[in-house]
Amino acid sequence: MQKTKVAIVGLGTVGSGVARLLLDHGDRTARHAGRTLWLERAVVRDLDKPRDVDLPAGILTDDVEAVYDDPEIAVVAHLVGGLEPARTIMIRLLEAGKDVVTANKALLADHGPELFTLARKLGRTIAFEASVAGGIPIITNISQCLSANGILSLEGILNGTSNFILSQMDRQGVAYSEAVAEAQRLGFAEADPTMDVDGSDAAQKLAILAHLAFGAQVDWRQIPRVGIDSLDIDDLRYAADLGYAIKLLAEAKLVDGKLDLHVSPTLIKRRTPLAEVHGAFNAVRVVGDAVGPVFYHGQGAGQMPTASAVVADLIDTAVGRTRLTFETLEPFSTASPPRVSLRNSDELPGRYYFRLRAMDHPGTLAAITGVFGKHRLSIASVLQQDRAEADASSAAEDCVPLMIMSHEGAEGAGRAVAEEIESLGVVRGHVTRLRVKNP
Amino acid sequence: MQKTKVAIVGLGTVGSGVARLLLDHGDRTARHAGRTLWLERAVVRDLDKPRDVDLPAGILTDDVEAVYDDPEIAVVAHLVGGLEPARTIMIRLLEAGKDVVTANKALLADHGPELFTLARKLGRTIAFEASVAGGIPIITNISQCLSANGILSLEGILNGTSNFILSQMDRQGVAYSEAVAEAQRLGFAEADPTMDVDGSDAAQKLAILAHLAFGAQVDWRQIPRVGIDSLDIDDLRYAADLGYAIKLLAEAKLVDGKLDLHVSPTLIKRRTPLAEVHGAFNAVRVVGDAVGPVFYHGQGAGQMPTASAVVADLIDTAVGRTRLTFETLEPFSTASPPRVSLRNSDELPGRYYFRLRAMDHPGTLAAITGVFGKHRLSIASVLQQDRAEADASSAAEDCVPLMIMSHEGAEGAGRAVAEEIESLGVVRGHVTRLRVKNP
Repeated sequence: MQKTKVAIVGLGTVGSGVARLLLDHGDRTARHAGRTLWLERAVVRDLDKPRDVDLPAGILTDDVEAVYDDPEIAVVAHLVGGLEPARTIMIRLLEAGKDVVTANKALLADHGPELFTLARKLGRTIAFEASVAGGIPIITNISQCLSANGILSLEGILNGTSNFILSQMDRQGVAYSEAVAEAQRLGFAEADPTMDVDGSDAAQKLAILAHLAFGAQVDWRQIPRVGIDSLDIDDLRYAADLGYAIKLLAEAKLVDGKLDLHVSPTLIKRRTPLAEVHGAFNAVRVVGDAVGPVFYHGQGAGQMPTASAVVADLIDTAVGRTRLTFETLEPFSTASPPRVSLRNSDELPGRYYFRLRAMDHPGTLAAITGVFGKHRLSIASVLQQDRAEADASSAAEDCVPLMIMSHEGAEGAGRAVAEEIESLGVVRGHVTRLRVKNP
Repeated sequence: MQKTKVAIVGLGTVGSGVARLLLDHGDRTARHAGRTLWLERAVVRDLDKPRDVDLPAGILTDDVEAVYDDPEIAVVAHLVGGLEPARTIMIRLLEAGKDVVTANKALLADHGPELFTLARKLGRTIAFEASVAGGIPIITNISQCLSANGILSLEGILNGTSNFILSQMDRQGVAYSEAVAEAQRLGFAEADPTMDVDGSDAAQKLAILAHLAFGAQVDWRQIPRVGIDSLDIDDLRYAADLGYAIKLLAEAKLVDGKLDLHVSPTLIKRRTPLAEVHGAFNAVRVVGDAVGPVFYHGQGAGQMPTASAVVADLIDTAVGRTRLTFETLEPFSTASPPRVSLRNSDELPGRYYFRLRAMDHPGTLAAITGVFGKHRLSIASVLQQDRAEADASSAAEDCVPLMIMSHEGAEGAGRAVAEEIESLGVVRGHVTRLRVKNP
């Protein structure tokens, strides 16, 4: 049987999983690839660090040049995180004639056009199924399985860390900080979870999916995003009282030929599929103009789900499918203009949930609701809690919690309402504003 | 731009949808295929029949030989249902040097090995995404996206007609026959819905998926199957009282290295994903040993969802991906022995729901429960309705409805219990026995 020599650069959690699949299940990968995927090298920074995979002698090295210099290594799983040296390693691998498989979505989000242009110039390929939504093969599904469709919308829970934290808060009734600590303890959040909880990670993934699904060329920093770090346990409680769960939702939707893109904690009616995505799971719902809605649910991250995506890419690359897709679809190409432009985020339509702590004085509610009227955002429901039932801190400050749900209006109006209410002098602290998903 | 000439044989509902995608969205298919997919011919039986798609002059023909004889037609969407002349047309197309895309699962289930062997001999390919689960691209997901996994189990709602009928019965409270009539009226069921409602269609699809996912080589007629035609509206009501929905579930599961396969109406806990699949939708849940559970939900049939799958296959075939997958995976090959054997269906483990109409005499319940004891199937719960509350027909016949849920036991024991109770002379009519899904 033919043999394709493979290397892994970066033998962390995912890399060890990839090594295990290649070493322990060679028969399986050979059946799908029509050739043996032979693990030739695994590059690590520290040879002495303990690992959870046993490698045959001679595979482990701390010298990445050994991979660049071996012309027999055809495909490399690039599993180095962050931007540098990840970018330089990717460039060197391509220049050395390797096809590359990567899980690094931050690298693609920031350097996709540069790296893919280089790969095309050198006649190489980059596969990146593992970069978005771990165990859900959403990249292949969008670029290949749904290729007969014009995609109308795509929405997803793309950050498993945030979803785990929200699930903990919702189910255990614990505060945000406590849920973050639990997520770190269980390995679902990194020591510095900023990129996860502030919505950056989800925005990077959304930028990649919006490129593939809509032909958008968007810097993820342009995507309006709110993270879960702005949430209070009270928001989850009030949402639950109203029949909603709160999820960090990434949305892309074509409206009048322009693309709405945003990432934000969103109230979603319970008992609907996206509201029932729990723990570190991810989900994506795609609506195509031919296929209608297709819903995917699977593990968002973790060693083996991500390794599954990496090895599927190694197989696709060894078989040659990756090359065919890469050459026809030209991902991250900036040679053609974007097929779609973004809508002004002020025009994004939406329904909103506002939570604020209003001073318990006559005229306060009239002043607040007046702001809604001024910005022509109509109010769907108001819940003002009795001070006796409110939390201790509100009561102590002479405040009552006030929740207002709006009807549909523009994002700009929603933002203006929140800002103007904050400036009125009748509320304490920030006004929390969240999107509410239409059923 | 390069051009690949395509023909459609069979311009029914799906064929018209395929024609529309090719004619109206040529830019889209060209972008994904890297070449124009040019609709050259569409073969129909009756040229005068009205159709819901406008074809340019010269495309429509009632002479399939025009396709065989045109060497420039490279790929053909074979959308003729049934076994003959579908089989002969497929053979003629392959012999004429065409790559074929088909939606005909009955043809594959009965003649897969013959047709695929011929295609391989002739250096041609057959793509069949549209043959299972319409809008859910489950064939590509199993053969390509999840290729790093050993599949542990696969379960699905694969027959949209049955699911539509069950949803009608459950939500509208209508009888089986009425729900069938409604499904026919709305085009979700054919004039003769036998293959759908007796579980044959789901068994054919399960045979195809079990082949791809587990390497099984199984005649669909071997798969133990029960259809929804055995159900009574009372079953749905009692199941609802117990917190369950009833769905026609197709299951494939590896247990101790052997494959359990069956199709049967199954009680599934409400608020779980499979229980919440409504109307003509399909769903598939696959568990891989690396990726864990992945859940797919989409439209099971219908013009455009199925056309979406056919056109994706046309694109894959034109690009060349189909050939690579076909050559490495060798679907429906009988050259190698099956990778898995089937478990004896008597050994299938399961929990069961029994419904019967017991005579309202002393000793009846003792006699019935005694049968469970004899076959060592333990009883989890019993619900005997008061005669005053029972339906009129039971009351008139001096009977009371009795529902018994068992703990887990073997399929053989479940069947023996039902048969022996029927022979006791203390029940009227059949004993209905359904599987209960473990949560």
